[in-house]
Amino acid sequence: MALRATLKNKSILSGLLSRLSSCSSHGRVCVSPVLVAQRRNNSTSPKLKVDFNQSTGVAVMHMQNPPVNSLSLGFLTEFCIAMEKLEMDKSCRGLILTSSQPKVFSAGLDIMDMYGKKLEQYEEFWRAVQEMWLKLYSSNMVTIAAINGSSPAGGCLMSLSCDYRIMADNPRYSIGFNETQFGIVVPVWCKEAMTTIVGHRNTELTLELGLLYNPSDALKIGLVDQLVPEDQVLATATKTMTKWLAIPDHARRITKSMMRKPTIDKIMSIREADMQQYISFISKDSTQKMLGTYLEMLKKKRG
Amino acid sequence: MALRATLKNKSILSGLLSRLSSCSSHGRVCVSPVLVAQRRNNSTSPKLKVDFNQSTGVAVMHMQNPPVNSLSLGFLTEFCIAMEKLEMDKSCRGLILTSSQPKVFSAGLDIMDMYGKKLEQYEEFWRAVQEMWLKLYSSNMVTIAAINGSSPAGGCLMSLSCDYRIMADNPRYSIGFNETQFGIVVPVWCKEAMTTIVGHRNTELTLELGLLYNPSDALKIGLVDQLVPEDQVLATATKTMTKWLAIPDHARRITKSMMRKPTIDKIMSIREADMQQYISFISKDSTQKMLGTYLEMLKKKRG
Amino acid sequence: MALRATLKNKSILSGLLSRLSSCSSHGRVCVSPVLVAQRRNNSTSPKLKVDFNQSTGVAVMHMQNPPVNSLSLGFLTEFCIAMEKLEMDKSCRGLILTSSQPKVFSAGLDIMDMYGKKLEQYEEFWRAVQEMWLKLYSSNMVTIAAINGSSPAGGCLMSLSCDYRIMADNPRYSIGFNETQFGIVVPVWCKEAMTTIVGHRNTELTLELGLLYNPSDALKIGLVDQLVPEDQVLATATKTMTKWLAIPDHARRITKSMMRKPTIDKIMSIREADMQQYISFISKDSTQKMLGTYLEMLKKKRG
Repeated sequence: MALRATLKNKSILSGLLSRLSSCSSHGRVCVSPVLVAQRRNNSTSPKLKVDFNQSTGVAVMHMQNPPVNSLSLGFLTEFCIAMEKLEMDKSCRGLILTSSQPKVFSAGLDIMDMYGKKLEQYEEFWRAVQEMWLKLYSSNMVTIAAINGSSPAGGCLMSLSCDYRIMADNPRYSIGFNETQFGIVVPVWCKEAMTTIVGHRNTELTLELGLLYNPSDALKIGLVDQLVPEDQVLATATKTMTKWLAIPDHARRITKSMMRKPTIDKIMSIREADMQQYISFISKDSTQKMLGTYLEMLKKKRG
Repeated sequence: MALRATLKNKSILSGLLSRLSSCSSHGRVCVSPVLVAQRRNNSTSPKLKVDFNQSTGVAVMHMQNPPVNSLSLGFLTEFCIAMEKLEMDKSCRGLILTSSQPKVFSAGLDIMDMYGKKLEQYEEFWRAVQEMWLKLYSSNMVTIAAINGSSPAGGCLMSLSCDYRIMADNPRYSIGFNETQFGIVVPVWCKEAMTTIVGHRNTELTLELGLLYNPSDALKIGLVDQLVPEDQVLATATKTMTKWLAIPDHARRITKSMMRKPTIDKIMSIREADMQQYISFISKDSTQKMLGTYLEMLKKKRG
Repeated sequence: MALRATLKNKSILSGLLSRLSSCSSHGRVCVSPVLVAQRRNNSTSPKLKVDFNQSTGVAVMHMQNPPVNSLSLGFLTEFCIAMEKLEMDKSCRGLILTSSQPKVFSAGLDIMDMYGKKLEQYEEFWRAVQEMWLKLYSSNMVTIAAINGSSPAGGCLMSLSCDYRIMADNPRYSIGFNETQFGIVVPVWCKEAMTTIVGHRNTELTLELGLLYNPSDALKIGLVDQLVPEDQVLATATKTMTKWLAIPDHARRITKSMMRKPTIDKIMSIREADMQQYISFISKDSTQKMLGTYLEMLKKKRG
């Protein structure tokens, strides 16, 4: 969700970097928010583990793209294929989305797919981001986010696209959209989806100020639906799923479509414009220079 | 409000039926929600009692369609005629809607008007349902729902269409839309109206999960405006009406229209599509078979 | 914000007048709400004092149009010119709007510009009202309302147009839209803007019943964001501004536009219709007669 970044503000960047650094040295939650520059292992190991229980009709999708489940092109492609498979399987009625990585649900878009690439590659990446949102937001399945770690930016968007959100009650975790803090603007579909969950005013404050909420504040504004102790997130999601699946699928699906179709239609009608906006922003010299500087700084810090 | 029913889920149906049965045997609140199959008395006795107080300009409309004020074609027709009369009477400025039946405000649409009828009859019934909503939602009068009993499904829609909702603070009563629990989807105007009252997220959860709220939970999400002891519902409605009538009619009416016209316009533009959708659903063999089975089960339970 | 006044209700008018009278005799907060008939001094002294701090990039705009900062044509013109200047000044990033008058932020539109004038003058006045709202609502600057006194009607609209609202925690002050109490309907842009802040239901209740809220109730429904002791309103606004200005301008502005553009576009498309509606209402014999009676009564009371 890194649209139209500016990132001119070096003091903020260094603030971020030092925070990252101090984080790791104190063994605290360490999530690089908004833009994740993940060390590549180029492994072909799957970035998702999907456990489908035939008897309950529920699939649990574990995100396992170390270290912070960054939303890279590879991850997003795998995610979309997995979603399509589950969606086509009539016996699969519910999906729980969770993380295999400690302390983080997902830290958002992967900067490596936004830097030094060709136009076609930028387009391919953004198409995958749009597709991920669309697939999750319009799923026929009951979708529950079992948020067992921090979930900033793109991670928050994934959570918001589900039908229900259960978060670990750990004050070190946070969820929200901190894009503007780094000179970045979220895409408009992010705003549309968030408004339907927490209302216009909370969305305005969150997106303009780039706010991340701890779990209890997130609960207060309705950004998540329920907090439970960290070790009970998945179990609670499973229990909650049972309640949702007690509703006849046909009626629930038509109702879900009735609630979400206006937003989906609106977004589909501006999909190409959104793409052009992204490509034009990301391919700008100034944007690339800024991202380069950012990566350089990250590298030095990691030294 | 029984659109596109599926009701394939027999276990839910029997759950409902046993609940109905256990209800009556323990003398508890007994409301058959969503679909009401009312024993016909074919009497021509009025289903509404309207008390109009010339000195205050307030009419109180008592619904008296035993046992549970089901919204039958007869009831709806009478309701629409009464509304028209009051609306035309310049001296009538306020309307309080309440129930003469114990423990129930209204239990929703009457299944008998949805089963074994001709196409024209289905059309006539649904026209009456649409008309009831439209008349109440767009009334020039101040409309207050004095909810002195349970108010599921169609009863909740009636309440939501009023300007203000006062409910009896009795934890045995409930209000909400439980349609999906029975494989049924509410019409889109129901969703539109509810969204303006409790917001998009509460509407989504309520309609998808088929939720009924006890009075205190209904108050929390804003589904009702005020709770009072059961024996003070009507008196409080009368007192509240005085406050509303202190506002000059002309300004209040224009303001109400400014608030509601966008929703009314949207609904009017899809009125015929909504009708076709209903007829196509209700006249399906599978729907009729399902309703027949449902009625058969009800009959057996009643023995 | 005096659109389509009716003011037929003499008992309400005299209620208002006696309240005004009792107010002044007890030294309490004395704000003539909705319509302000201000004694003219015809002075050319500026009605705004703008302090711009180059080092922080923040301008503080003090409204000083005694006694109650009524929104007269003169005031509005000066306000729009000042806004334009600040908006053009790239070094000005934030605006704090506050009052130099004791006990009142702004009491709303000036009745003297609505009475006994020519059509062109009514048009000129309403154009200025529209322009004020548009300039404030679509400002590129961070706008914070430091509400250090009562803020009914037009004063509330000014506050709502800002990005953030800090109010003096003095129970004698109030904020809201009491127009309907005097037979007046707010313009539709007022409803649109308010809905985005407090939601549809709160807007409906406020506008139909003409509600003014004390600070703590205003906070509860989200009409203001924060309450502080009266003498700390401006200092808190300054501190809050620092937090907002920590966000890179470019990203914050695009995000603000993303949030507000749909509302602005909607309003712009009906701007001329809104103008015609106002002129047609205000130039009616009945409206003018009513305003004349109102002014006559005010004069006698002051006598």
